[in-house]
Order: sequence, then C-alpha cells, then structure tokens
Amino acid sequence: MCDNYWEDPQLAQDESIKIFLTTKELDLAEGVKFVKTPKAGAVISFCGTTRDVFEGKQVSDLGYESHHRLALKTLGKIVQECKTKFENSVKDEKIHRVYVGHRLGKVPIMEDSIIVCLSSTHRQEGWNAGIWLLDTIKERVEIWKTERYIDGGFSWKENDNANVTDRV
Amino acid sequence: MCDNYWEDPQLAQDESIKIFLTTKELDLAEGVKFVKTPKAGAVISFCGTTRDVFEGKQVSDLGYESHHRLALKTLGKIVQECKTKFENSVKDEKIHRVYVGHRLGKVPIMEDSIIVCLSSTHRQEGWNAGIWLLDTIKERVEIWKTERYIDGGFSWKENDNANVTDRV
Repeated sequence: MCDNYWEDPQLAQDESIKIFLTTKELDLAEGVKFVKTPKAGAVISFCGTTRDVFEGKQVSDLGYESHHRLALKTLGKIVQECKTKFENSVKDEKIHRVYVGHRLGKVPIMEDSIIVCLSSTHRQEGWNAGIWLLDTIKERVEIWKTERYIDGGFSWKENDNANVTDRV
Repeated sequence: MCDNYWEDPQLAQDESIKIFLTTKELDLAEGVKFVKTPKAGAVISFCGTTRDVFEGKQVSDLGYESHHRLALKTLGKIVQECKTKFENSVKDEKIHRVYVGHRLGKVPIMEDSIIVCLSSTHRQEGWNAGIWLLDTIKERVEIWKTERYIDGGFSWKENDNANVTDRV
C-alpha cells in the first residue's frame, strides 16, 4: 500500500497553522516542534489512541474514512475560529500556533488517529482551546470511523470516543 | 557543570508513575512513551516553556530551585491523589499512567521547565486531570523560580505562570 498525504494548499502558507490528513503514522514530536515559539509559555498536546477494548468487546483496530476536501476545509475553519475565540488582548491571552494531524485508514492498537498540538501564552487559554478544539473537530469534521473487533464483527461510529452512537 | 537527577526510590518501583527532578533538558517523547498503554484512548501532555517577555520586560532565562526531597514527596502525593480523584469505575473513567519531570537550574527561552504527560481511558477525565495536576503542582510543590531580565535585574516568583505575585 502506498502512503498518502493531504493538506490545504492555502493554509500551507500560514506558519501558525498546520493541518493535514495522512495514512502514515502521526509524529507528536513534529507537532510540538511546529507550535513552539518564544512568545508561548505553554504547549498542550493531545493524542487520540486506539484502545484494545470498547464496551467489553476486544477491538482489533479502527478504520477512518473522510471526505478529504471537505474535512480539510472544516478543519481550517475550526482552527481559525479557535484562534479568534481564545484570544483576549486585555488578559494577554493568545493561541500562537496550532497543529492538527488526522490519520486515515487502519489505525492499530496503541497508534494515534489524531494529534492536536497548540501553543498559548499562558496555560489557561491553552487548556480551554485544546478542549474546545478537540470536541469541535469530533462534532463537525467529515471523518468517520469503523471499529473492528477480533471476533470479526465491526460497527460504524461517529468520530467521537466520548459519546458514541451507531451510524448504521 | 555536571548534570543532576533526583527520583523518589519508592515510586521508581511503580510502572504507572514516573516523577523526577533534573538539571538536564526535558524530553517529551520519553514522557509520552512512558504513559502509553493499550487501555488508554487519550494521551495528554503539557510543556511549560520559558517565554521571552514578562509584563513587558525582556526575560533572559528562568532559574528554578527546590527542596529536592520535599518536592519529590509532594509530587508523589499529588499524583496519587490525582489518580484517585479522576477514577470513576461507573463511568469507566481512569488515569492510567502519569509522568512528571521538573527541570531545576537555568532554563533558557523556548526550553521546558516542566513536562506533564498522562494517559486516560477517555479524553474528558484526561483533560480534567491534566488541569488539576498542573494547578496543584504549581500551588503545592516546593519549587521556586527566579526571573532574570536582559537589563540585568531579576525577581523571585511563585512557581505559577498564570497568577504571579512577587515573593520578595
């Protein structure tokens, strides 16, 4: 299988935002390196990882599919919205840089399906932005997941590990 | 200058907790590798980084000092408390592993003074635990910081980048 990578060409010009979809393994070190700046006192990272069990069933892997063009567009909008939402110049609060990588295809146990990194002036706006960003990505981005079990079964899920409901 | 490293020998036996103080550079990849487990769907990391400006003054670096034995003991208590506080077996919520490294001595701009990593079953208890853990470490652990400015001045601070008050 050949590896694939998709990025929004317009956003690729913005040194404060990196957003991509890939079938390759994600790399947290790359994300943290991208978001670090001398103006930021906090770097917050989130990795969403395939677990071995879901509701008592042994999971073999997760599979992610997306509408690539729409997903990148929605991700771009969400990240821009996040930067505006958590900036407060009176309190000197700011999200400096954001990195979002989402893996597509099969994601084995212990490997990451999503990595989000961001840098902020202080930790408060960083935590708030991280929580909002991840919830909003899972709600709005055109990416879907299949959960495959070791007994051979599988089920389609909303892309949300917290409040999962069956799609079909 | 020789590098130094301090760890609680009792906690060093616990494979779910790693806590240490060091004068060397911190390594996020080590922390993330330590906390990953097949049972965790989320890995959350925080790096506290030296910023180049504080209240309009150009910072040259931060310096951290501690009462090593007490600081390790307090860190150990806080991490144990965190694991109990954010476990909820009814909701299947759990903090699986926690890694806390705090740097001592001089920490230049863009380098990390603290790294906290944790793994949780879902993202909610992970975010809550991360926020609580960091706030509590900054409130209770016997570590103090000096801020040195490029004009040659310096000031002692509480070890809290969010709500700083002068100590002397």
